[in-house]
Amino acid sequence: MDNETIKGVPGFRFVACSAGLKKSGRPDLALIFSDVPARCAGVFTTNKVVAAPVQITLPRVRKGRCQAILVNSGNANACTGEQGRRDALRCGALAASALGIDEDLVAVSSTGVIGAPLAMDKFEQHVPPLAGQLRPDAIDEVSAAIMTTDSFPKRYAVTGEVDGRPYRILGVAKGAGMIHPNMATMLAFVLTDVELDGVFADQVLRLGVDRSFNSITVDRDTSTNDMVLLLANGVAGNAEITVGSDAGRQFQSLLDEVLLELAKMIVRDGEGATKLVRILVQGAASDAEARLAACSVATSSLVKTAFFGQDANWGRIIAAVGYSGAQVDPERVDIRFGDVLVVRDGLGTGKELEAKATQVLKTPEFTVTVDLHLGEGQAHYYTSDLTYDYVKINADYRS
Amino acid sequence: MDNETIKGVPGFRFVACSAGLKKSGRPDLALIFSDVPARCAGVFTTNKVVAAPVQITLPRVRKGRCQAILVNSGNANACTGEQGRRDALRCGALAASALGIDEDLVAVSSTGVIGAPLAMDKFEQHVPPLAGQLRPDAIDEVSAAIMTTDSFPKRYAVTGEVDGRPYRILGVAKGAGMIHPNMATMLAFVLTDVELDGVFADQVLRLGVDRSFNSITVDRDTSTNDMVLLLANGVAGNAEITVGSDAGRQFQSLLDEVLLELAKMIVRDGEGATKLVRILVQGAASDAEARLAACSVATSSLVKTAFFGQDANWGRIIAAVGYSGAQVDPERVDIRFGDVLVVRDGLGTGKELEAKATQVLKTPEFTVTVDLHLGEGQAHYYTSDLTYDYVKINADYRS
Repeated sequence: MDNETIKGVPGFRFVACSAGLKKSGRPDLALIFSDVPARCAGVFTTNKVVAAPVQITLPRVRKGRCQAILVNSGNANACTGEQGRRDALRCGALAASALGIDEDLVAVSSTGVIGAPLAMDKFEQHVPPLAGQLRPDAIDEVSAAIMTTDSFPKRYAVTGEVDGRPYRILGVAKGAGMIHPNMATMLAFVLTDVELDGVFADQVLRLGVDRSFNSITVDRDTSTNDMVLLLANGVAGNAEITVGSDAGRQFQSLLDEVLLELAKMIVRDGEGATKLVRILVQGAASDAEARLAACSVATSSLVKTAFFGQDANWGRIIAAVGYSGAQVDPERVDIRFGDVLVVRDGLGTGKELEAKATQVLKTPEFTVTVDLHLGEGQAHYYTSDLTYDYVKINADYRS
Repeated sequence: MDNETIKGVPGFRFVACSAGLKKSGRPDLALIFSDVPARCAGVFTTNKVVAAPVQITLPRVRKGRCQAILVNSGNANACTGEQGRRDALRCGALAASALGIDEDLVAVSSTGVIGAPLAMDKFEQHVPPLAGQLRPDAIDEVSAAIMTTDSFPKRYAVTGEVDGRPYRILGVAKGAGMIHPNMATMLAFVLTDVELDGVFADQVLRLGVDRSFNSITVDRDTSTNDMVLLLANGVAGNAEITVGSDAGRQFQSLLDEVLLELAKMIVRDGEGATKLVRILVQGAASDAEARLAACSVATSSLVKTAFFGQDANWGRIIAAVGYSGAQVDPERVDIRFGDVLVVRDGLGTGKELEAKATQVLKTPEFTVTVDLHLGEGQAHYYTSDLTYDYVKINADYRS
């Protein structure tokens, strides 16, 4: 995998700086710029409390074109009312002016403390000079500048080929826990130099996000600021990729890989997490029912504490399936930890296999498979364990 | 309040013993007996994985009459298949035979470890002699014998009056956390000597449970064994209380008090809990929407860790309301900790009031009020904080 060596995507340039928004003095302001207006698709928070930058950026992205992303950490600009919207607009205007592009082509994105006004003097001072410092190989700076409680920067890249030409898909993300409401947000920006049809871009991102960011959980909470943007600038020179084409299927598969790897990094970096567990539900009456059951198991505090305790406590898993709302015949349920069958037809398989399952639970990453034996429905969810450190981080956060 | 002195209800008798189902040797088998068949109503787990005693008892209770409850702790008789059903039937038959009543008049109830067969030899040995030891003032023995991880027994009683005659309502409950799947279950038995109409009995219990046990949360999980039974033996000699009568309203109010006090005891005894917090949502578009929002706040791990950290982190509360699914206009939301207004029209009210709110959070029991200013809908939820000890208890449970 060439992930470590890929530092950019043709036609995109990057820069970041320390604008003093984070008390620590670490980088907190970044700019992503495409040399030409890029095809754009976005997925945004479903929380009804929507931060100002999301309110400003969503209608712009819906128009289908974007050339620049200005993103800051240290302050979420959420629950800031009319002033917050004016500030978000001003941030976009500052970037547009410095870059010499239309305001409507600028996406603004924020993450950090909720309920405090943006320090606009810092944006006035630091945004204009950024435009002159853009470089094609500085994606690392961006991934560092968007971190809040993240313990490591999150990047992933792949290469594809269309019309005999190579192209890249590069993603950066931030997040540790689905939300940290006072240091909020999951953000991801995915850049590619391929040319995409507009309908295809929307569909491919939505499907990819469902299979990745919408299939992970650290603590069920969703943020006021969540945002995933896909920018495709067409610099690769291919014919537009459309829905239903072979090139489209290849692109979906590569995008899925980028999004899923970024999503898994977020769970691994989950607050206090020591384990990455895939909950796979098979044999459900439908995919939707499988998803209900997988989500129920993945978000159960009792299941997550049992993972932390390395306890093959299948009673908690079967109970979580039982209250998920999915159709279940308890006496047909099988459960596996890794390859070890601990429940067959709803009954425990005995102490010996449970002891083997405990060995699986001692590894840092494993799969729990629940087979309902009712149909063909299948879904997975990635989750972390619930640990002392999760409580510590979230109880002590502001004190 | 005469709670401490009330040890029984006219026409009911009690007994408990140590049958060796708990490794600790503590009391684990109890019998409640009404001198005459009592009017009966029940509310049962909605989990699709239903333990054997619930499968046996539910159809009996639906017939409307019950004279005895045989309940054991130490083993939930859940995920035990056909053998589990045979064992639950046999338990009921043993009690019926010892008491000389019809099997259909016996409710059986179990709580404890999931997935292990009942030690039937212990039931064969210990159930028959119980019938001869029933006493009218031994409700304490019952409340002790149904405990599993509970740290204290839970009882509450009130007195009412109908047709110029006094009557009692006495409830016992067990539970610490909504579920402890390997030492499962919330159980409550409510006994009264008043005469109730059958339709009224069903309705009054269902409404009361919605306002109490269905409005508390420790960790969102629901058990395979949950059961609430109301037995009314009519020994008070009143005319049947019916729906829509003054006597009915008084009974509902008294039953609500008994159920709510028992429910609050369960939250106070929540695993690792140090606080009892009432989440009150007002001004919602409907009561159902208020309930959605209250449940979302009450079950958020981030909100619950902030309570533990005594942090007036209103951002987490407004975010939890935002993703609850309830209709919200973020810029009309007010939030109070106790009497302290920390958010007005979606904006923080400043550091000074937040410092005052922190003082409220330092008390062991307080109310958080969220006013959505959209309508008349109102609902509350009781919740606990999420603590190191919650993780410890649930991670270490079986090791």
